[in-house]
Amino acid sequence: MSHSIIFDTDPGVDDAQAIAIALRHPEIELLGLTTTYGNVDVTTATHNALLLAQLAGRDDVPVAQGAAGPLVKARHPAPAHIHGANGLGDIDLPEVTGRADPRSAAQFIVDTVDERPGEVTLVAVGPVGNLAAALQLDPTLIDKVKRVVIMGGSIREGGNVTPVAEANMFNDPDAASRVLTAGWPLTLVGLDVTHRCVLSESHMARIAAGQGELGRVLADSYAFYRDFYREFLGIDGCCPHDSCALAWLLRPELFTTAPGHLNVVTRGEAEGQTVFAPEGRTFIAPRWSQTPLVEACLEVDGDAVVEWIADTLA
Amino acid sequence: MSHSIIFDTDPGVDDAQAIAIALRHPEIELLGLTTTYGNVDVTTATHNALLLAQLAGRDDVPVAQGAAGPLVKARHPAPAHIHGANGLGDIDLPEVTGRADPRSAAQFIVDTVDERPGEVTLVAVGPVGNLAAALQLDPTLIDKVKRVVIMGGSIREGGNVTPVAEANMFNDPDAASRVLTAGWPLTLVGLDVTHRCVLSESHMARIAAGQGELGRVLADSYAFYRDFYREFLGIDGCCPHDSCALAWLLRPELFTTAPGHLNVVTRGEAEGQTVFAPEGRTFIAPRWSQTPLVEACLEVDGDAVVEWIADTLA
Ligand SMILES: [Ca+2]
Ligand SMILES: [Ca+2]
Repeated sequence: MSHSIIFDTDPGVDDAQAIAIALRHPEIELLGLTTTYGNVDVTTATHNALLLAQLAGRDDVPVAQGAAGPLVKARHPAPAHIHGANGLGDIDLPEVTGRADPRSAAQFIVDTVDERPGEVTLVAVGPVGNLAAALQLDPTLIDKVKRVVIMGGSIREGGNVTPVAEANMFNDPDAASRVLTAGWPLTLVGLDVTHRCVLSESHMARIAAGQGELGRVLADSYAFYRDFYREFLGIDGCCPHDSCALAWLLRPELFTTAPGHLNVVTRGEAEGQTVFAPEGRTFIAPRWSQTPLVEACLEVDGDAVVEWIADTLA
Repeated sequence: MSHSIIFDTDPGVDDAQAIAIALRHPEIELLGLTTTYGNVDVTTATHNALLLAQLAGRDDVPVAQGAAGPLVKARHPAPAHIHGANGLGDIDLPEVTGRADPRSAAQFIVDTVDERPGEVTLVAVGPVGNLAAALQLDPTLIDKVKRVVIMGGSIREGGNVTPVAEANMFNDPDAASRVLTAGWPLTLVGLDVTHRCVLSESHMARIAAGQGELGRVLADSYAFYRDFYREFLGIDGCCPHDSCALAWLLRPELFTTAPGHLNVVTRGEAEGQTVFAPEGRTFIAPRWSQTPLVEACLEVDGDAVVEWIADTLA
């Protein structure tokens, strides 16, 4: 079965790998890349999206630029120590020859879904402001998409940028609240599973060998990202967060999900936290169980996911 | 080594067992019981504390009544389906002959600690409003207590009354915020460890046999509590939450703790959540690491704890 997707992204080292999968995988029809600030400024994100498509020989894929900052809160500086100032580990990059679609990311999403109602899956692996903006343009989008897959959040795993919040959700909790409670068919692929997936140097060597110039960019930028994991998290290897969203889409049997209700905390010490109330579980008040049902990933065969990533790009 | 403690409690079935341990254990000098609303109304809590001391032949132990409700928020009704309307599984109870100390719980704490500075450990196993009120009467209490042990909160385990909040913290998050960030030597014994301890019917049979009339009250009330666990949580057995605080005090080697900074969420969807920032871990902003260091229990040998409880009361 083939999946027609729009991939919303802030590349970013792990985004770059996921974009390569979206560009290369025979069961993915990539309708477009939409970009957001997050790991980098949005203009850098757009540059990198164009570059990655070009390196894959796929400069036919539209790239539409979106959010330069959060919907409501002030923007936090991009984490240059994780992804590099250029988003790709500060390695030297080739010239970009293409240019972005003139439409905003949100308009591109609305138009593209309108052309093929019921067929398009939105995969978002950055702060989700573009999806919130698309819902603002057309609230009926919730009935027109096939599915929404979000890399973000954390149910039991704790956070990565705060003790309880994952970076994409923390970066724009108001957008996340809008998008995660919109009532469309949604799957959350969060730290509970992405932290179980660790990509090693040997996996990256296979990817580098298999993807030519694109492989070199993925592997060299990964080396920078790995330094961050080693220094700050004490892990030898990296979590391929964003590729996990595509792994769920194409290999859902590797994941254990549960239905439930999500809320996103928008203010205070728990800002950006995803609060998950499993379906049917009773709490002291009904308020945690009043949002539409979604699916949240709780467990994964992490070894199988990283093999799938390496096999896809080898 | 002996521990001189004040036990702050809202009995409550699991409180009753912990009170029995505090009354019976040869290494505990129980200086007094202070009572709060929570599992029951505060007057019921006081009645039950007096009764349990009486049944143990220890009506010399002072009982001082405290908080009838939260510091700031509105009170949520007591959960009669868990502990019974009388707090002890709605079983028939003997007459109480003693009466409470005329002082408030907070004043009793201040006076008792003042008599023996540096020697008294406060063990709190209900909403912590009495400790907050004691700090209001005498902020220097933080330098006079030996230690504070709190049964409450959850680091990675999720909540029991909301998806993220434990009942004692949710019942009075403002008091919890005051108490957990006060800067006294504090250990948090939360759901991460209490949920690993499951007391079976055979453990309770040993306790019933070993404690005479007190044992009968503990065992009969436990049967009611067990029905709740079976029906709502699908567990055959009960978590002896409050006894775990005493288990940590007397058998700390059974627990794994970590130092870190706590914040308590007081408003919004994550109300009552304890947010734990491990010492030395860097987050996107310093705000989660600015409260005084405490110890939080993360892991436990649950089988050994329930054996310790049964051995103590057998
Ligand atoms: Ca990303
Ligand atoms: Ca209690």
